Amino acid sequence: MLSYLNGEFLPLERAHLHVSDLSIQRGFGIFDFLRVKEFVPLYLEHYLDRFYNSASRMGLPDPPERAELHSVIRELIRRNEVAEAGMKIILTGGYSPDAYTPVKGNLIVSQHALVLPSVNQVEQGIKVITYPYRRDIPEVKTINYTMGVWLQQKVKQAKAADVLYHHDGIVSEFPRCNFFVVTRQGIVVTPHQFILHGITRKKLLESATRQFEVQERTVTLQEVYDSAELFLTSTTKGILPIVQVDDHVIGSGKPGPVTWALREVLQKTEQREIEIATAAIGSR
Amino acid sequence: MLSYLNGEFLPLERAHLHVSDLSIQRGFGIFDFLRVKEFVPLYLEHYLDRFYNSASRMGLPDPPERAELHSVIRELIRRNEVAEAGMKIILTGGYSPDAYTPVKGNLIVSQHALVLPSVNQVEQGIKVITYPYRRDIPEVKTINYTMGVWLQQKVKQAKAADVLYHHDGIVSEFPRCNFFVVTRQGIVVTPHQFILHGITRKKLLESATRQFEVQERTVTLQEVYDSAELFLTSTTKGILPIVQVDDHVIGSGKPGPVTWALREVLQKTEQREIEIATAAIGSR
Repeated sequence: MLSYLNGEFLPLERAHLHVSDLSIQRGFGIFDFLRVKEFVPLYLEHYLDRFYNSASRMGLPDPPERAELHSVIRELIRRNEVAEAGMKIILTGGYSPDAYTPVKGNLIVSQHALVLPSVNQVEQGIKVITYPYRRDIPEVKTINYTMGVWLQQKVKQAKAADVLYHHDGIVSEFPRCNFFVVTRQGIVVTPHQFILHGITRKKLLESATRQFEVQERTVTLQEVYDSAELFLTSTTKGILPIVQVDDHVIGSGKPGPVTWALREVLQKTEQREIEIATAAIGSR
Repeated sequence: MLSYLNGEFLPLERAHLHVSDLSIQRGFGIFDFLRVKEFVPLYLEHYLDRFYNSASRMGLPDPPERAELHSVIRELIRRNEVAEAGMKIILTGGYSPDAYTPVKGNLIVSQHALVLPSVNQVEQGIKVITYPYRRDIPEVKTINYTMGVWLQQKVKQAKAADVLYHHDGIVSEFPRCNFFVVTRQGIVVTPHQFILHGITRKKLLESATRQFEVQERTVTLQEVYDSAELFLTSTTKGILPIVQVDDHVIGSGKPGPVTWALREVLQKTEQREIEIATAAIGSR
């Protein structure tokens, strides 16, 4: 697959960084990840807004121009000819002379085959475990997944699919996904603090309000155990039902009607976005 | 300077990793850093013990053999012909097919010129600020310095030299150094929990007990402000006096007698180690 590194299009297998890069020396960098569907980079501007916010918050000097990212992403979609894919944009801390201070970052844009949830996971729901942790600077999409990667050992041991973070009894998010609760009163609730603000989460919140009462607020672990339905959201996974948290079976133990309804809402929102984007290209 | 990458000696400027490495994708890897003095890798076995402990704790499969690291470090010292240097050993999360699961890591061993504290810093002491944070998995030397690098902005704004972490009023460590307090009763105290166990810290604790009462225990931020002397320890910096924490001037505002005495203790311990190592080589 063709990728892009610091101004040059090149096959992904030829994209290398020198070991002095701050990602290798200090795990320091930011990224974003969006989805290409029917050749359209879904919600591109939202992902780019977040990317630039991450770069600015982390003090990464001299990020690439927005026009460069636009043209690179368009070009990769055109030349790779893959209708459905993930698109990853990484901006590292750069070749830092003192191995500690960020300098102009190295930019890598790469397209990847999507690994979607299995039919079984979507239809039966997944089991998750919980772990006491809050990400560093959670509202920024840094490359730091030390804890998430490390916890994979515990996730596998528990035969679970993911791990939900909480802190002092308050839940926040998964390492790579946002978290939603459907209460027994049918209210759709999602944590509002100490999270990465997912674009799928945002689109769902916007579109769900037509059918459901929606709340962004503090969610306790006890409320999670007592809920009617649970699900996670992410760019890759969309909406994925959760039917067990630690030893607690949620609701009926099967994905519930609100989760199904919201999956449809999200799919329609995506389809509308694709139609608008495609029409815009056609009318040029 | 000659370096070593996955079985091959090569000039450092030619050492590259593919962008799929888990350090670049997820900031995931471990490292260690030791000091070469008079061509001797100081306390080598202690650093290697810590390196293997980090690899094991982070679930990095198939780390390099200890004999390989011994021979690489010996060879780099011999061929680079630099008497005083830092030696860095990085083991990344490897070329992970799913960009999330650690696989056999990439090993980079590189020798670097040492950037020592300035004479002014040693003689006058440094100012530090504090920040509420506790490192993830603090007893493991991961490459994750997201917070430490990010806080450099605040350190510079405050015209300080470093930042001391604390959590719920309990102090722990600096991003790259351990922390010591000398109480008004002349007792040498250092935090015992939620820290990386530094080798310089360990050597100092062993050798200081001949002259001073030494305690490893919980240290509060208030105790720091009220102390007689403060200093930090690290492989590169040795013992560096601290004379101001936030707005609090410590003791007389100058490096104190216990700090000076301990600097001498540490230097003698190092010298003895070098003599033993040199004699061992000579007698072969």
